[in-house]
Amino acid sequence: MLRIITERTEARAELRRICDRTHDERVVHKEATVREVIQAVQRQGDRALLHYTSEFDGQTLKPEELRVSGSELDAAYQQVSKELLDAIRLAKVQVEAFHRQRVPKSWVQFGENEVVLGKRYTPVDRAGLYVPGGRAAYPSTVLMNAIPAKVAGVPRIVMCTPPGPDKTLNPAVLVAAQEAGVTEIYRVGGAQAIAALAYGTPTIPNVHVITGPGNIYVTLAKKLVYGTVGIDSLAGPSEVLVIADSQANPVHVAADLLAQAEHDPLAAAILITPDGNLAKQVVAEVENQLAEHPRRTLTEKAIAHYGVAIVVESLEVAAELSNEFAPEHLELEIAEPWDLLPQIRHAGAIFLGNSTPEAVGDYLAGPNHTLPTSGAARYASALSVEVFMKHSSLIQYSPKALQKVAGAIEVLAQAEGLPSHAESVRLRRENL
Amino acid sequence: MLRIITERTEARAELRRICDRTHDERVVHKEATVREVIQAVQRQGDRALLHYTSEFDGQTLKPEELRVSGSELDAAYQQVSKELLDAIRLAKVQVEAFHRQRVPKSWVQFGENEVVLGKRYTPVDRAGLYVPGGRAAYPSTVLMNAIPAKVAGVPRIVMCTPPGPDKTLNPAVLVAAQEAGVTEIYRVGGAQAIAALAYGTPTIPNVHVITGPGNIYVTLAKKLVYGTVGIDSLAGPSEVLVIADSQANPVHVAADLLAQAEHDPLAAAILITPDGNLAKQVVAEVENQLAEHPRRTLTEKAIAHYGVAIVVESLEVAAELSNEFAPEHLELEIAEPWDLLPQIRHAGAIFLGNSTPEAVGDYLAGPNHTLPTSGAARYASALSVEVFMKHSSLIQYSPKALQKVAGAIEVLAQAEGLPSHAESVRLRRENL
Repeated sequence: MLRIITERTEARAELRRICDRTHDERVVHKEATVREVIQAVQRQGDRALLHYTSEFDGQTLKPEELRVSGSELDAAYQQVSKELLDAIRLAKVQVEAFHRQRVPKSWVQFGENEVVLGKRYTPVDRAGLYVPGGRAAYPSTVLMNAIPAKVAGVPRIVMCTPPGPDKTLNPAVLVAAQEAGVTEIYRVGGAQAIAALAYGTPTIPNVHVITGPGNIYVTLAKKLVYGTVGIDSLAGPSEVLVIADSQANPVHVAADLLAQAEHDPLAAAILITPDGNLAKQVVAEVENQLAEHPRRTLTEKAIAHYGVAIVVESLEVAAELSNEFAPEHLELEIAEPWDLLPQIRHAGAIFLGNSTPEAVGDYLAGPNHTLPTSGAARYASALSVEVFMKHSSLIQYSPKALQKVAGAIEVLAQAEGLPSHAESVRLRRENL
Repeated sequence: MLRIITERTEARAELRRICDRTHDERVVHKEATVREVIQAVQRQGDRALLHYTSEFDGQTLKPEELRVSGSELDAAYQQVSKELLDAIRLAKVQVEAFHRQRVPKSWVQFGENEVVLGKRYTPVDRAGLYVPGGRAAYPSTVLMNAIPAKVAGVPRIVMCTPPGPDKTLNPAVLVAAQEAGVTEIYRVGGAQAIAALAYGTPTIPNVHVITGPGNIYVTLAKKLVYGTVGIDSLAGPSEVLVIADSQANPVHVAADLLAQAEHDPLAAAILITPDGNLAKQVVAEVENQLAEHPRRTLTEKAIAHYGVAIVVESLEVAAELSNEFAPEHLELEIAEPWDLLPQIRHAGAIFLGNSTPEAVGDYLAGPNHTLPTSGAARYASALSVEVFMKHSSLIQYSPKALQKVAGAIEVLAQAEGLPSHAESVRLRRENL
């Protein structure tokens, strides 16, 4: 049951509680386990991977089964329907088109004063993509992570995903990986997969950037290896915040809230509206649509714990509360969504108008569905091509150009107590 | 004494050892201390800050002394020379000009098919800048961190730096902060400052991005609070790799190597050259310049432990070894530096030619001097304006546009077992 809140202080406290829902003392203890797994993989390589796959996934693999074979990859195409393959291909085309826009380009500027400055962008050599198994084995996850790496120009895209029963993998995931340009796939999950990607094993190459969602063990492992490799973000459970006015359709709003809640018992679904009547209708409609929901237990749990409908005086207040929450997904189901946009400061993705349910962006609109959660939209953004690239600054001074600034450099170096910094300039000045 | 290595396998092993010089088992134990400091600041706020400042910095502050006063800020201008103020202002102008180039801009694209897509860039609300005290209290650090935040449009830039003897702060640091647009300065350092910036205290506001270098405690604290806030990177000790050919001046090369070594006993200074004779001359010249070096003990230590001159067959091999090391700073003191550039894959900043010592980039060429260390240039880049901005994806579909892709979305949602995702589209389709 979606609770209705009309009082501002209570609403603020509730949004705060929901935002902080994954801050958990138990994390520290799990971290010790994860640290152990990582060290075992560093020391024992593939042997540790097989050990943990048996222990955590209940699958006994031979070393040569770690890498997914070509015949298995071919076979996956026979196991997905024509409609699904077409849908994956449509999504691929649109996601790729969006990510091809504004890809950073190298530039060099020749100044009038014999100074050359620039930035040179290059892709990373190898990227690692983690794809969860079980409840969250989604082909869309593969597309959203592999495509930006491909567009960045990464020559080697390595994917890890845990084996399901009988060592199998989701065929739609395998097809999406091939369509998106993944170069190799390994049948391993959890913290052990992250460790393998960060440090390498005889079978799995180490990579330089690891992206992709995962459970708390995967997330903790990503945090621990960050610094040895780059990572995309520390993703938490998903969330949607819908701002709706009286012209919104409560049936649609309810479906959008449930589309978030059905992901995870920790998912959050928030409605903010100036229309108390709409709030009531949405609450009723959520119950209605839950009645026959195939994932009812899980979805109901999310709605009960992290679902709320907040009634406010105006859309301005709705925007203010939304900014405080900094949602991963923000839907503006209001008459004039573009008018409210300037007041929105923090949101991972913004869905404007009544005909743009979040599902459009989840699958195929083009923008990335890997988005900052738990308030991270205050400082972070969607996964992008830039995550798979880095740049080198370029600097060239002529002898004359150096001469001009030598005095200032020497003064600064002396002030910082770094004599050889000053010398490196002074000696060159004398040479002229 | 700079060692000369001519054997390839030995060179590789040595570069590997130098790259890994900060990987240290003791870090785990320090992390427990840092975790404790962070928790104390979260629980006790300013009281914990005063406690740790007394314990770690030996300075007993009153709560109202945490914030640096206006009169203290004014007084700093009286304590720096006219030459230093001019040099700081020249550096500011040039660094700002470079960072103003290619600042990400919001864009919206109206597709022919009633689809609107875009990216909206906004600055973070508040940024926190850490500036170390003691040996590394550098005005250039302030400029390099505050200017990109200012250019990004961050309205509130908060700086923390530990108090020196008699609670004083380095006047050049205070002047640089004011010139660069820092809005408030707090007299607190170490892990406690990072905790204050991440979680806020009654005196210090919480921020959304923390940047700036620091000792191992500061770096560990940044890693721990990452996820609650954004951070720039986990900086290690500095390093330079010089590729030089026979036309390079050994006196200049030696000065450049020492300009790195004088930073820190953990700093690394590497020469790679195809000219064995040059290597010998540089070794002799390093000894020569060390004889009277004001920071001789520290600098000698760095050279002895992490200094090396590698003689190779060709510039191509030099580039290959450089790529394996992925240096923070790369100097190309060779006849045709632009010709070698395409072979360089990983480097934080590249200094081309004989008249571009690293010191030019450290102070005033324009590009940021906060660069990836310890091999992080494989995936990371210089601190940039982007670190202080984030973007929201924008998506708007018309009813007709949604209609067109509804089938594909439903197929994908069904394949992923997410019925409400499909419903959120199907219900809207029926409405048409």
